[in-house]
Amino acid sequence: MRYDIAIIGSGPAALSAAINAKIRNKNIIIFGSKNLSNKLIKAPVVDNYLGLAHITGKDLMQSFKEHIEKMGLEIVNKKINNIYSMGDYFALMSGQEMFEATTVILGTGVEFTRAMVGEEEFLGKGVGYCATCDAPLYKGKKVAIIGHTPDAEEEANYINEIAEKTYYIPLYNLKNSSEIDGLDKNIEIISSRPTKIEGNEQHVNKLVFKEESIDIDGVFILKDSVSPKELVPGLDTEGAHIKVNRDMSTNILGCFAAGDCTGKPYQFMKAAGEGQVAGLSAVSYLDKIKKNN
Amino acid sequence: MRYDIAIIGSGPAALSAAINAKIRNKNIIIFGSKNLSNKLIKAPVVDNYLGLAHITGKDLMQSFKEHIEKMGLEIVNKKINNIYSMGDYFALMSGQEMFEATTVILGTGVEFTRAMVGEEEFLGKGVGYCATCDAPLYKGKKVAIIGHTPDAEEEANYINEIAEKTYYIPLYNLKNSSEIDGLDKNIEIISSRPTKIEGNEQHVNKLVFKEESIDIDGVFILKDSVSPKELVPGLDTEGAHIKVNRDMSTNILGCFAAGDCTGKPYQFMKAAGEGQVAGLSAVSYLDKIKKNN
Repeated sequence: MRYDIAIIGSGPAALSAAINAKIRNKNIIIFGSKNLSNKLIKAPVVDNYLGLAHITGKDLMQSFKEHIEKMGLEIVNKKINNIYSMGDYFALMSGQEMFEATTVILGTGVEFTRAMVGEEEFLGKGVGYCATCDAPLYKGKKVAIIGHTPDAEEEANYINEIAEKTYYIPLYNLKNSSEIDGLDKNIEIISSRPTKIEGNEQHVNKLVFKEESIDIDGVFILKDSVSPKELVPGLDTEGAHIKVNRDMSTNILGCFAAGDCTGKPYQFMKAAGEGQVAGLSAVSYLDKIKKNN
Repeated sequence: MRYDIAIIGSGPAALSAAINAKIRNKNIIIFGSKNLSNKLIKAPVVDNYLGLAHITGKDLMQSFKEHIEKMGLEIVNKKINNIYSMGDYFALMSGQEMFEATTVILGTGVEFTRAMVGEEEFLGKGVGYCATCDAPLYKGKKVAIIGHTPDAEEEANYINEIAEKTYYIPLYNLKNSSEIDGLDKNIEIISSRPTKIEGNEQHVNKLVFKEESIDIDGVFILKDSVSPKELVPGLDTEGAHIKVNRDMSTNILGCFAAGDCTGKPYQFMKAAGEGQVAGLSAVSYLDKIKKNN
């Protein structure tokens, strides 16, 4: 089946786009996380979301969840690795699985973490960003997963089915990181911060920590968001940000963007406002196509 | 005293700008209405304000009010008629009164009502938009006030102190429009819709209704919002909308705009998001000036 709109992300921009498009009876699929957004969860108190004074990030997340549930919207907990414009529709790849949508709204957020030493050097030579995509390469090998968010745990389990040895390095706050619910028991958890990735000229072979190092054949760095240029080949960007017009359209016909991925200020309300505009712009684009056919 | 930021309007764009600037410790004055926005009050149910699912316009207004009150913000119930850029500050005129501010944020909404027959022809020849400004011209004369919103009642009273005879024509819904609380008793209320303004070559002399007409020397048409070009001479507009950049700056240095006045979609969340951006852009403009001095 082909969706009217595929929304990538589950932060305020993505959800605001979704509720607006849903009101206009569009057929929507949202790819995101059940926790919506790590930035939301981490916010101690939000004072500038007009109408919800002095609210915790968790409560704000809860109110967003209730809103989309009331509208009958669900979030599909799958990671989209690549989006290709096919002319009159988009093909969205999640590992081996493909989805189709007439329009795409990117609400992918922005990545704050800097690249690790060796990360860029070995990208594609043992360093990867999508475990589920590249898993077949690591059959019977030693793999480390650096998880910036709990969403990485599932990818670690996936790799663990194929790899000989899986290490998991959680970079988020954990009360007891010697054990993580839901993570396969034979995955080795390392509770310290990796400092660099080393290798020979061809390939990664070592992940280095402050006081130790481990031999590996590959390492996946799983962040909350993906670089937009990597996600959508041909997308026009300016530094880390997607270039958008006032109606939130991008340089690719049918592809819209909203929220932190379009630029500063990185704020929830700005994101929600842009999401609304992106959602409504996608709707009028769809209506225009329908009228012309 | 000179304010850091003068905000014109009290809808979601204006209030979102205000709370964001207040958090950054800026000295703010908000010119608006105690009812915030007629568009808000008139909205039966709002489904697309993310986080506040299925809320009535009145409840949404109430939640905005509570938010700004919690932040110690107040709305000054005065109408600004003209804003002049004076180089390093703005002069804001409310009738004879002047306010000064280093930056201005326009959240003036958009005017949906069409001009009446004769309105444009007699503008400045007996047709006016600001009763408190032009009141001195009508000493001992006959004046009609066409009120699009209850805010006009106060201006009618003001005129009534000076004029010989004041007519008040409320165009908003009233349960019993033969009497309006707070309106001076000797003001004559006319409960029908005026159809045109007539006059001789020089000046207005008649206001015509379906079945009657009244002799007048002047008529004020008091709408919810003002045309931005009239409000801020030199402002760059595109049709009814103010031209803005992605950071909500306008062509006038230090002047920002947000919400319906910057263009479609006319939506509360879009307005609040833009208000946040405008507020934060004004703050960084102020901080830059301070640093350079």
